[in-house]
Amino acid sequence: MKKNVDPCYYGDYLQLDKLLSAQHLQSAKYGEPAHDETLFIIVHQVYELWFKQILHELSSVIDVFSAQQVKDQQLTTVVHRLKRVISIQGLLNDQISVMETMSPQEFLAFRDYLVPASGFQSIQFKMLEIGLGLKREFRIDFDKQSFYNRLEQKDRDFLEALEKKDSLFELTQRWLERLPLLEFDDFKFWALYRQATDKMLASDEAIIQGNPTLSEKDRRQELRELQSTRDTFAALWDEQEYSNWQSQGHFRLSQRALLAALFINQYNEEPLFNLPYQFITCLTEIDEKLTIWRYRHAMMVQRMLGGKIGTGGSSGHEYLKRTTESNRIFKDFFNMATFMLPKAALPELPANVKGQLGFVMVGL
Amino acid sequence: MKKNVDPCYYGDYLQLDKLLSAQHLQSAKYGEPAHDETLFIIVHQVYELWFKQILHELSSVIDVFSAQQVKDQQLTTVVHRLKRVISIQGLLNDQISVMETMSPQEFLAFRDYLVPASGFQSIQFKMLEIGLGLKREFRIDFDKQSFYNRLEQKDRDFLEALEKKDSLFELTQRWLERLPLLEFDDFKFWALYRQATDKMLASDEAIIQGNPTLSEKDRRQELRELQSTRDTFAALWDEQEYSNWQSQGHFRLSQRALLAALFINQYNEEPLFNLPYQFITCLTEIDEKLTIWRYRHAMMVQRMLGGKIGTGGSSGHEYLKRTTESNRIFKDFFNMATFMLPKAALPELPANVKGQLGFVMVGL
Amino acid sequence: MKKNVDPCYYGDYLQLDKLLSAQHLQSAKYGEPAHDETLFIIVHQVYELWFKQILHELSSVIDVFSAQQVKDQQLTTVVHRLKRVISIQGLLNDQISVMETMSPQEFLAFRDYLVPASGFQSIQFKMLEIGLGLKREFRIDFDKQSFYNRLEQKDRDFLEALEKKDSLFELTQRWLERLPLLEFDDFKFWALYRQATDKMLASDEAIIQGNPTLSEKDRRQELRELQSTRDTFAALWDEQEYSNWQSQGHFRLSQRALLAALFINQYNEEPLFNLPYQFITCLTEIDEKLTIWRYRHAMMVQRMLGGKIGTGGSSGHEYLKRTTESNRIFKDFFNMATFMLPKAALPELPANVKGQLGFVMVGL
Amino acid sequence: MKKNVDPCYYGDYLQLDKLLSAQHLQSAKYGEPAHDETLFIIVHQVYELWFKQILHELSSVIDVFSAQQVKDQQLTTVVHRLKRVISIQGLLNDQISVMETMSPQEFLAFRDYLVPASGFQSIQFKMLEIGLGLKREFRIDFDKQSFYNRLEQKDRDFLEALEKKDSLFELTQRWLERLPLLEFDDFKFWALYRQATDKMLASDEAIIQGNPTLSEKDRRQELRELQSTRDTFAALWDEQEYSNWQSQGHFRLSQRALLAALFINQYNEEPLFNLPYQFITCLTEIDEKLTIWRYRHAMMVQRMLGGKIGTGGSSGHEYLKRTTESNRIFKDFFNMATFMLPKAALPELPANVKGQLGFVMVGL
Repeated sequence: MKKNVDPCYYGDYLQLDKLLSAQHLQSAKYGEPAHDETLFIIVHQVYELWFKQILHELSSVIDVFSAQQVKDQQLTTVVHRLKRVISIQGLLNDQISVMETMSPQEFLAFRDYLVPASGFQSIQFKMLEIGLGLKREFRIDFDKQSFYNRLEQKDRDFLEALEKKDSLFELTQRWLERLPLLEFDDFKFWALYRQATDKMLASDEAIIQGNPTLSEKDRRQELRELQSTRDTFAALWDEQEYSNWQSQGHFRLSQRALLAALFINQYNEEPLFNLPYQFITCLTEIDEKLTIWRYRHAMMVQRMLGGKIGTGGSSGHEYLKRTTESNRIFKDFFNMATFMLPKAALPELPANVKGQLGFVMVGL
Repeated sequence: MKKNVDPCYYGDYLQLDKLLSAQHLQSAKYGEPAHDETLFIIVHQVYELWFKQILHELSSVIDVFSAQQVKDQQLTTVVHRLKRVISIQGLLNDQISVMETMSPQEFLAFRDYLVPASGFQSIQFKMLEIGLGLKREFRIDFDKQSFYNRLEQKDRDFLEALEKKDSLFELTQRWLERLPLLEFDDFKFWALYRQATDKMLASDEAIIQGNPTLSEKDRRQELRELQSTRDTFAALWDEQEYSNWQSQGHFRLSQRALLAALFINQYNEEPLFNLPYQFITCLTEIDEKLTIWRYRHAMMVQRMLGGKIGTGGSSGHEYLKRTTESNRIFKDFFNMATFMLPKAALPELPANVKGQLGFVMVGL
Repeated sequence: MKKNVDPCYYGDYLQLDKLLSAQHLQSAKYGEPAHDETLFIIVHQVYELWFKQILHELSSVIDVFSAQQVKDQQLTTVVHRLKRVISIQGLLNDQISVMETMSPQEFLAFRDYLVPASGFQSIQFKMLEIGLGLKREFRIDFDKQSFYNRLEQKDRDFLEALEKKDSLFELTQRWLERLPLLEFDDFKFWALYRQATDKMLASDEAIIQGNPTLSEKDRRQELRELQSTRDTFAALWDEQEYSNWQSQGHFRLSQRALLAALFINQYNEEPLFNLPYQFITCLTEIDEKLTIWRYRHAMMVQRMLGGKIGTGGSSGHEYLKRTTESNRIFKDFFNMATFMLPKAALPELPANVKGQLGFVMVGL
Repeated sequence: MKKNVDPCYYGDYLQLDKLLSAQHLQSAKYGEPAHDETLFIIVHQVYELWFKQILHELSSVIDVFSAQQVKDQQLTTVVHRLKRVISIQGLLNDQISVMETMSPQEFLAFRDYLVPASGFQSIQFKMLEIGLGLKREFRIDFDKQSFYNRLEQKDRDFLEALEKKDSLFELTQRWLERLPLLEFDDFKFWALYRQATDKMLASDEAIIQGNPTLSEKDRRQELRELQSTRDTFAALWDEQEYSNWQSQGHFRLSQRALLAALFINQYNEEPLFNLPYQFITCLTEIDEKLTIWRYRHAMMVQRMLGGKIGTGGSSGHEYLKRTTESNRIFKDFFNMATFMLPKAALPELPANVKGQLGFVMVGL
């Protein structure tokens, strides 16, 4: 037993006096206590506690990736902690059903007392968005507008400073760019890869042309979509074209980072790629779970308020739904399948390349 | 013990010989067996089994509401069975995570062998949509187009016949319309209700005007949205106006049915309204869970295929996301909160009216 | 908008300053900050917030049942709130997986600093157990022993006072006893019921005797168990016998209350029984979910500590597992099926009895 | 597109004609169709489909470990597939809530027609138990007895043959034994490890002695438990002692395999140990989830039948609860924490040992 450890009492350790005395009903303050406001407060407080935990894990991950080098030991820890974040997100999503045990009528009993408080004012949630990489320029107009003007000055300053720091998105991008996966002196990997994908696209066109169940209208529609996939590929191989597409928001990652991620995905069974692949997959999961949370949250708000304005004086759910797609951070990982090949169609890596990879990874 | 009951053997009872011999890999048929195709088949087979169970409950509910009268005993059973459907939907939604344990690469190993099979061809899922009330005219264009032309003739005929029958939506509407909740000879309920809502809207305007955290741009935006809420209310009270809105798709329920549902929601604590309220809430939940399933399913498809075309030769996820909102069936229940008042603001029901209600409900 | 409502700011409303500054690592205090202690603190704080919410609902239910009469309107509210408790319990159970993202090694990094704090010291959890009806006499010996001696005096006094008040268990029992469901002057319900159950038991014996798949040893075992079921029934019908069994812990509810609950279960489709049936079912669910939580919690402790002693200086998991069964509160509801008949075998209620019931229920 | 691939139709591919025509109600056969028997059948059929999927993954893992060598690439695949099994188990556990939407009364309406069918007769579930490593000698007496005598001869023969094959338990044990983690010529690892654990045990004793909140009775109890932990350690270090304990069922793994697993757990951050650690963790999770399933299943049976006998003519739930603990397969992994040290207390590995490890792992 550690020497000189003072005895620790459960309630003091968890500071339950502070925690359990922090639920003051606005409706009580104005003489009309509403039974269900307690649920409203506690649901939001639990969210904030989980946000603090997620931010705790996130910032430890950001520290690791802020260094020049990421050691494999550290990658083990990073993946472990991101999986914890994902498991917490599962709770956050299910928690919406608990909030939905409050009927619109029960909510209306105290809504007016909360004006103009709003979930938009959760600093920790914005820290989470910014820390992951949701920069202002990616937000939809309304969101850009209202992102800050609901906040008190000190909170606004704090978040604006945070936006200037590197987010996990940028750090991941830089880490991917550092992986020298793209030039193998005597081995033209990407040329072979491109040939393979051209074959795949040709076969996809054959599928559409040959599909007896498609109406002509549908077929034209499919071919239009296939063409846009072709254009995406074209962009993938051409630096200039890529940056045009990027500036239009089709890609967020740099070309080099995207290709590195694609490489890792395609050869994820190589033990040396296992941890990087797990890391990329975690970021994809986090993005997916956050998106599902946004969508479910938007539905919950609609169910609670319909077309009514919320406590923040905004009819939130329409806006909230618009953000579910626009606020995707790692969508390039999410869309990776566009560029992927079946294993059988993959260019075989020559032994010396595998060797290089090994060396490369040690250099991680 | 029942007389003359032949002994029953687990495997025979469940017909496991048929069930467990029904997984034939297309990839094996073509000499390249893919380990993960088994998961693909079984996940879809489990969905189909659950769909059969949901249809079993749904058709029993449709039978009850097809009768002239719905007895309270029957309403107990109906609510019980709809809650079972909701609980099954919970599994259907979580099941998507199991499918997502298949990586895009693993899927690509057999995708080409499935062409042009497609989830669009699930007859049971279409039966479910039609049975709930998703008529063709509500589908988005692409969907209208492709709803049938992927199907074999016999399936098409079967579903087209089904579309002509009454769905749960129409039966619920008719049941709501039958509830004589709207005229109380000497008591002008809706006039009082309208006054109360006008007051609420005025107060909401005051909230927006008085909200210091709103930018001018946001404030104008909010006021526009409030005005549209005002217009919605205007439509609610005016039969002609209402049907205009209805024809534009703003409402699906008839005015009379919507008002009846609103009444039940507002006075749900009246024991006599408990079962009808639970029934309406169940339909709302079923719609919500189905919508979440559509959304998660669309994300899963995107993650698996990116911009690639699916086995049905269509790049599904964009289309799928569009359907999540358009294919809402009981959205009027979902938007009910728009028209709701806090309990304190509700008109008090005179004793004789409560009496009438009682009588009315016996008449249910 | 309510007049004179001061503007409300999200962070102030939720008192996030208190909430988010209440995580002090013991390991940091002693100069060896452990990354994962934050998770340990926050998981427990979230539990305590949810406990507060559950206690909030529970005490409102206890208030309702403390009155001489329970109106149906109130029963609607009670059922609604208990369903909320059940939905929160779902989160509490899933939350264990989040705790399990902490490896034993990560826990050992700070375990020694927490001595002798222990979950046994959660006052709110004990309030929950006591409020539901877990009186000291039902606890296992070790638990009886240690229930109080880990607590500070003020906490001990508080809980001992609480134990003297009526719990939901006693109030439910009294409410059930008040339902005059047992004597119908000219109609011998329970006599008929008893005949029906005797027939059922005879048929069960036939099933065992006739089951070709049972070994002789198994068959004797089955017959012994059937006999004990017979004895249970005998006890059910005989007041003296019943109280003997009760004193041995086979029953917790009084005979009269148990019979009333049985009656409600058997005729739950009667609209008038719908709310009472839902109420009983909620209590059963709460008990089941609490039991599952105890079991999963015990496994988690085992996984985290194995045979090691915990921070409370006790090797918890063995003890914890023992409590899962002993601490059941509404086990009589849980075992109700023992005494139930298939609907077809139920005595038909004569019209006048249904009338009485109706009247009775009004009297609720 | 693959050449010569015949068009594939959704319904034919999934063989829905077989699948959806495989629900024959026994109650209908005897002229009293019970609405809820359909749920009963489908729930069990879904279980069997998932069992088939789990067995598909399990047998592929068994194949990998049956070889002399396990390559890291293969370990990647193995871990990926076991995680899929775990995710399916999550559904299996939640599915119990769907079954619980059937009330005891609804079940009693058809129970008698199923006699003597029983879940004990699920061949696939027994294949799963046996494949994981639940050999007959580990089953509780009643289970040993009845494990086979409910089965038809052909099924019995099939399973008895299966019991003779290597299970995942034995293959994992052999793989662990092959890891030369235990002798490092000039480095006495386990001697150092033992010193560290002795210190830990001494400190634990100090904790108990110094704990002011323990009653004397509790303190004696704790010290007894600590002594048994000391004895467990003694057994860990002594080959003879260990096999005594093993023969009494305290351990299932061989001493050598247990020590290897302990080593991997303690140094899991070493990249080379990442996959082996993930593999061990997966087996622990599978065991935990299976145990939770057994427990929840037992509760569900109790709720449905109380003390009644089940369709298999056995009052299942008491027996089922007894199996939850006895049928643990990888309990040694689950109890690993008993022997673990905090990272700070771990012996530092000398560079040359790390080198050896590296070499060793290449040899995996």
